Amino acid sequence: MILKLSCPDRPGLVATLANFIAVSGGNILEMSQFTDPIEKWFFIRVHIEIEDSEAKRRSVVDTFESLGRSIGAEWEFRLPHERTRTAILVTKAAHCLQDLLARTYAGDLPLDVAAVLGNREDLAPIAERYGLPFCHLPIEKENKGPAFERYQAAIEESGAKLIVLARFMQILPPDFCAAFQGRAINIHHSFLPAFVGANPYRQAFKRGVKIIGATAHYVTSDLDAGPIIDQEVARVEHYHTPEDLIRLGRDCECLALSRAVRFHADDRVIVHGNKTIVFRD
Amino acid sequence: MILKLSCPDRPGLVATLANFIAVSGGNILEMSQFTDPIEKWFFIRVHIEIEDSEAKRRSVVDTFESLGRSIGAEWEFRLPHERTRTAILVTKAAHCLQDLLARTYAGDLPLDVAAVLGNREDLAPIAERYGLPFCHLPIEKENKGPAFERYQAAIEESGAKLIVLARFMQILPPDFCAAFQGRAINIHHSFLPAFVGANPYRQAFKRGVKIIGATAHYVTSDLDAGPIIDQEVARVEHYHTPEDLIRLGRDCECLALSRAVRFHADDRVIVHGNKTIVFRD
Amino acid sequence: MILKLSCPDRPGLVATLANFIAVSGGNILEMSQFTDPIEKWFFIRVHIEIEDSEAKRRSVVDTFESLGRSIGAEWEFRLPHERTRTAILVTKAAHCLQDLLARTYAGDLPLDVAAVLGNREDLAPIAERYGLPFCHLPIEKENKGPAFERYQAAIEESGAKLIVLARFMQILPPDFCAAFQGRAINIHHSFLPAFVGANPYRQAFKRGVKIIGATAHYVTSDLDAGPIIDQEVARVEHYHTPEDLIRLGRDCECLALSRAVRFHADDRVIVHGNKTIVFRD
Amino acid sequence: MILKLSCPDRPGLVATLANFIAVSGGNILEMSQFTDPIEKWFFIRVHIEIEDSEAKRRSVVDTFESLGRSIGAEWEFRLPHERTRTAILVTKAAHCLQDLLARTYAGDLPLDVAAVLGNREDLAPIAERYGLPFCHLPIEKENKGPAFERYQAAIEESGAKLIVLARFMQILPPDFCAAFQGRAINIHHSFLPAFVGANPYRQAFKRGVKIIGATAHYVTSDLDAGPIIDQEVARVEHYHTPEDLIRLGRDCECLALSRAVRFHADDRVIVHGNKTIVFRD
Repeated sequence: MILKLSCPDRPGLVATLANFIAVSGGNILEMSQFTDPIEKWFFIRVHIEIEDSEAKRRSVVDTFESLGRSIGAEWEFRLPHERTRTAILVTKAAHCLQDLLARTYAGDLPLDVAAVLGNREDLAPIAERYGLPFCHLPIEKENKGPAFERYQAAIEESGAKLIVLARFMQILPPDFCAAFQGRAINIHHSFLPAFVGANPYRQAFKRGVKIIGATAHYVTSDLDAGPIIDQEVARVEHYHTPEDLIRLGRDCECLALSRAVRFHADDRVIVHGNKTIVFRD
Repeated sequence: MILKLSCPDRPGLVATLANFIAVSGGNILEMSQFTDPIEKWFFIRVHIEIEDSEAKRRSVVDTFESLGRSIGAEWEFRLPHERTRTAILVTKAAHCLQDLLARTYAGDLPLDVAAVLGNREDLAPIAERYGLPFCHLPIEKENKGPAFERYQAAIEESGAKLIVLARFMQILPPDFCAAFQGRAINIHHSFLPAFVGANPYRQAFKRGVKIIGATAHYVTSDLDAGPIIDQEVARVEHYHTPEDLIRLGRDCECLALSRAVRFHADDRVIVHGNKTIVFRD
Repeated sequence: MILKLSCPDRPGLVATLANFIAVSGGNILEMSQFTDPIEKWFFIRVHIEIEDSEAKRRSVVDTFESLGRSIGAEWEFRLPHERTRTAILVTKAAHCLQDLLARTYAGDLPLDVAAVLGNREDLAPIAERYGLPFCHLPIEKENKGPAFERYQAAIEESGAKLIVLARFMQILPPDFCAAFQGRAINIHHSFLPAFVGANPYRQAFKRGVKIIGATAHYVTSDLDAGPIIDQEVARVEHYHTPEDLIRLGRDCECLALSRAVRFHADDRVIVHGNKTIVFRD
Repeated sequence: MILKLSCPDRPGLVATLANFIAVSGGNILEMSQFTDPIEKWFFIRVHIEIEDSEAKRRSVVDTFESLGRSIGAEWEFRLPHERTRTAILVTKAAHCLQDLLARTYAGDLPLDVAAVLGNREDLAPIAERYGLPFCHLPIEKENKGPAFERYQAAIEESGAKLIVLARFMQILPPDFCAAFQGRAINIHHSFLPAFVGANPYRQAFKRGVKIIGATAHYVTSDLDAGPIIDQEVARVEHYHTPEDLIRLGRDCECLALSRAVRFHADDRVIVHGNKTIVFRD
């Protein structure tokens, strides 16, 4: 099992948790721990080996309840290697969708892709190639509310726990952001916080930067300002056109997004305020 | 000799220049050329091998005048391996000054350091270690004008052609910027245009970015907005404190600044509008 | 048109070529030039804008013949944006094939994929997804000669000018290497020349390196020793298992191979001895 | 205090150690742990906050003895922020020495440099600039044994616990390597295991690699084959001469060496077999 936990720091937390695990008959396979010295906050991810019975695991989860509360923690238990049921939202750009699906089917991403939803139909053939349902949900400029309700319903119906915005070119309404807080990952095609908003590669070209980037972050109602999970950069030269930047940026987007999705699906990310703790592997 | 030239694009420019060089008895050792397809502008740097006499060189330079004018060019001739006379401005942070001096004396930077000027005295010992004059020119908050006039006078007296702001923590007045346009290089301790202004590492820490950087740019009166010459980045993790960011950033600052200074001193940079063409080596 | 040329260095080469182009009614859009100061060898790539008629182009190519010979050059003319007809050889690992096809259909790689050939059938479905012919040509351990003759015949029949070994896990016989010299690109899954031969990631794991890599190179009969076109690296940590190295390495392989293929297909690579000149874009 | 420990893996190790610390009145500020799943070996580094009295600390260290033995561990206790007494060995190349001293005096490296030893006198002025004793110990080709005995004596006399070979161009005799096993760090100017032995940059130039590197490793009697602590790389292009590679490589050497020295001095490195576990910060 994976235990992911954060709480106010106090002496003896590691010993307390390690004892609980030992007493419950578990063995710590891997423990990643971090104490924020400024916020005085404790973060931990523990990979626990435990007798493989549903009853045993359920008992551990139940027993932990009072300990968790007593230290004021937020926590989550999960089976490792459990695939994360995921919905991918797209518009027209194919590379991130293609990259996520290729990695998933190569066994590199522990996802169970429930559905691909698009406000355009362009990428339906890619979903079909992988035998995945593609759901076309158009969004009208004038009346976005009902459209996003349809998205939300489709996601809920699909059973998706994780929502990936793989170059989904729509600004999300606050309700939608709130509904999926901490489980919707977006890829922004700039090295945030530089070049927020539209056309970041064109902004980067105009500014004459020598390095461009991409940023994977959790979605919040504050556009392009959510907690950053990972970033990736590429060097640019004076001879690169805006089209070259778009091309070079695609690799950054695929790398940053796929890493962020993998960290999330492996329970390696803890959000705290507007920042993330990422226990990399 | 090095010829650096930019002009509106038109057919036959390379042939025209190559012929001029051949007819003048020169041989092209290395030619770097770029045509901006959007601005329709032509940029070239040519390393010309020519008979080693002052008279010969003077004649080439004089003869070129009418050709250069006829194509509407801006250009510059220079001897390669001629060291660029340089003034370095500092405040308190030692690393960039130290790095520039170490590289210069290792033979990696073709500089002839004329003077080190500081608004504080902290770094005088470093200049002295290298046998360089250190000039302490304090700047009072209330009355910066006269101080900057003293800086300008000291720079002019030193014969410096290049001014390097090696973590000089002062906002420069517009007159000063104008006087040294295109030959004052600053290092900003962020990945511009992210985190302009003060305390960029603290801003980066607060925003929770996963990559930080540094930016070497030409000084303009528009703060932190001048043409970027080079940038460098470093990866950060959740466990890095603001102090760690400062430490990791120092390497970025030294690398970006020293490369920018070397490119400038090797006549590898052409400024066009607010962007740079950098013919790297 | 693109002219790619190399020859012994001598004074006036740029002027000679630029004049030829001007006299032929062409205009130089972009010129990349390099003179090897040790070997005294001259390399150039010129993008020439010329009247768009087949007759005109043919005349330029024919006329250049005597000039090219007189300077002892090897050269090649080609239309830009002409797609390079390509055969991709694979075995079992899908990522490089998938990456090359995704980039090609996204418009990032100027390839016209003629066929996918495999000594196993595993990747047939991927070729089929893209509507490409997959040709299964098994190779028996005991008797490789006839199998490679079938490969050669299939490649020639397909009209492929470029052969890409996208994790094709077979040692090529010398005849085969000779037949496709300078136009067969292989990806080796290590940072050559470290870890030549089999299982490089396992070798890297055992050696405890902190950075792994991948190398795209032209195939020669000397295994893993052909001219290197590009390399890519990734950082590894002590907690990475051999399987993690394989996963991290896949990204390196895709990036290095796709760049090398693009440089080749854009006529940006000149082989000289066992090294490459790569005029990057 | 810092506790660094490795031992065969078994269930409950984290709990056992965490309890010991809690019972001793300590608090875990930071714990980094790794279990090698192949070798079944357990590695941990714990930063313990404890009452600041010498007696208290001594008692913890003494009490731990029987626990440590019972789990078959190798371990080390140390005060954090204790500066590591260090001897730096040099020959002629200045950059690594200069970089280490600059970082030390900027407060980035927790070293207490006891002496600089050189088989040539070239770098004496640099040591002197920092007020450090420089000891010139020449080494004759024919008779190296006595010279290395003088080195060993000088190092022991200086009280140095860490030996840094900052481009010390001498092959060390096996006795010397044995005497300083696990506490002598060398910088090799190549991306090991590529280009072992002499003139690695020239070897890299001849092979035509597109990336060069540097490797910081513990010294063993097996030349260039000791446990790697860190590596750094730089991209090279066809126009880079062997001299350019040397220049670009210097930055790699300084970065890899200074990081390795910092990790060692912060007790972040555990050697296991021929590999290192590095708990980065």
